[in-house]
Amino acid sequence: MGAPGSLARRFALLVAYDGAAYHGWQVQPEGLTVQGVLGEAIRPLVGEAVLPVGASRTDAGVHALGQVATFASRRVLAPSVIRSALNARLPRDVRVLASREAPEGLDARRSARLKRYGYLIATGGVPSPFRRGYAWHLAEPLDLAPMRAALGCLRGTHDFSAFRASAGRDRQPVCTIHTARLVRRRSLLGVVVSADAFLHHMVRNIVGTLVEVGRNRRPPEWVDDVLRARDRRRAGPTAPAHGLFLLGVRYAVPLFPGGGRSRHTACP
Amino acid sequence: MGAPGSLARRFALLVAYDGAAYHGWQVQPEGLTVQGVLGEAIRPLVGEAVLPVGASRTDAGVHALGQVATFASRRVLAPSVIRSALNARLPRDVRVLASREAPEGLDARRSARLKRYGYLIATGGVPSPFRRGYAWHLAEPLDLAPMRAALGCLRGTHDFSAFRASAGRDRQPVCTIHTARLVRRRSLLGVVVSADAFLHHMVRNIVGTLVEVGRNRRPPEWVDDVLRARDRRRAGPTAPAHGLFLLGVRYAVPLFPGGGRSRHTACP
Repeated sequence: MGAPGSLARRFALLVAYDGAAYHGWQVQPEGLTVQGVLGEAIRPLVGEAVLPVGASRTDAGVHALGQVATFASRRVLAPSVIRSALNARLPRDVRVLASREAPEGLDARRSARLKRYGYLIATGGVPSPFRRGYAWHLAEPLDLAPMRAALGCLRGTHDFSAFRASAGRDRQPVCTIHTARLVRRRSLLGVVVSADAFLHHMVRNIVGTLVEVGRNRRPPEWVDDVLRARDRRRAGPTAPAHGLFLLGVRYAVPLFPGGGRSRHTACP
Repeated sequence: MGAPGSLARRFALLVAYDGAAYHGWQVQPEGLTVQGVLGEAIRPLVGEAVLPVGASRTDAGVHALGQVATFASRRVLAPSVIRSALNARLPRDVRVLASREAPEGLDARRSARLKRYGYLIATGGVPSPFRRGYAWHLAEPLDLAPMRAALGCLRGTHDFSAFRASAGRDRQPVCTIHTARLVRRRSLLGVVVSADAFLHHMVRNIVGTLVEVGRNRRPPEWVDDVLRARDRRRAGPTAPAHGLFLLGVRYAVPLFPGGGRSRHTACP
């Protein structure tokens, strides 16, 4: 029989949250965080302090429809009751959509193969009061064709240093973007990007750069130049956090088939 | 030349608001109201205290996509600048979508010919954190066919006393419902009701009653019995305020063609 640690079972959660009230995912010395409130809700279940590991350390104000978190428990827990037990304790802006026992060795962050983000932009003269926390409002219309052309430059494997918040984080800057597309529904645009990994602020910097193209301040080819230059100072501004949603995370073995996508959208 | 009052021009506003933070439309001795914040925003424009008249006195927590409000001004105002001037002063959860000079004699409330409300119900095991302020969450699925049959009983001209909050208000209880339908999009249901007039809590009482039918606790014919009995105690519970939206208001002459509907939905 092994040490107590080896008896621990690991569980995975599919989590959705409205990030408006939170200083991001990761626990901070001060301020409410999603990891913090989730840890507090898990604690009475497992009988000890625990910090769940999240697939993505979303920034302050960023939302999630399909964040994945894992945690270990020395207590035997029925996965089917974890979801309801946690939702009974969590604030209403954080919801566990599903829970299950995690495959052996799976870590929400290190094992993630693909993450998918969506960014909402609302255009038009007057911003809807119902979107004020969920979309970047731009008064002027955007030209979609050049934005789509610019997105095309970003697909594939590149050094994305130009779209990284700072060189301070040690991760190597090469990522592979699998999906980069623009969807439109009336005055609402969505930029959807999936990749094997993301640098800090990468989606928001891509969106801020794309908007320069959509405003016809820059041609689509400029985005390719920015990418190749690997210089953050050449890219566009960082789009605000409140338009960004972590849509889902994929692992080698599907953890939550269907993800949060089919049952939960960002809006009524 | 007439008295100063006769020189006053009247203006109409199309207003959308997230009702969560407000004690309803109508000014109260205590607490923030939509009429109050709108009046405060209008005051510097017209140079005196003013209380706009709203087509619907929405209750605390009720939202609007197309409220119509009218006010008078002795100052000459360009309708085109009223919208932007008010939006610059209003809190972000109240937006003026359009402004125009009002046809002579038009009063937002008394001249309204038809009002349209929508009520959102979200079904499913876990409520989305993004809908928590905009839909009534019910864990169990609802049976739509009997709900639709029940809605059919309500169309037309009836005494709606059974669905009135209290007999205290003096309005006569006969209204004509023109539209009463149920729309579905995945786990989200919308009840849309348009009528020439509404009694206090009428839509919320209709929805609470419909849900009894959708849960198969009562047959559709029961709604007809309730209607005919004209007794509030026989109807279902009052559905919560946060699922209700004033969608639009119609007048003899179209004030805001397209209303708030085409450009603003309750969600991204």
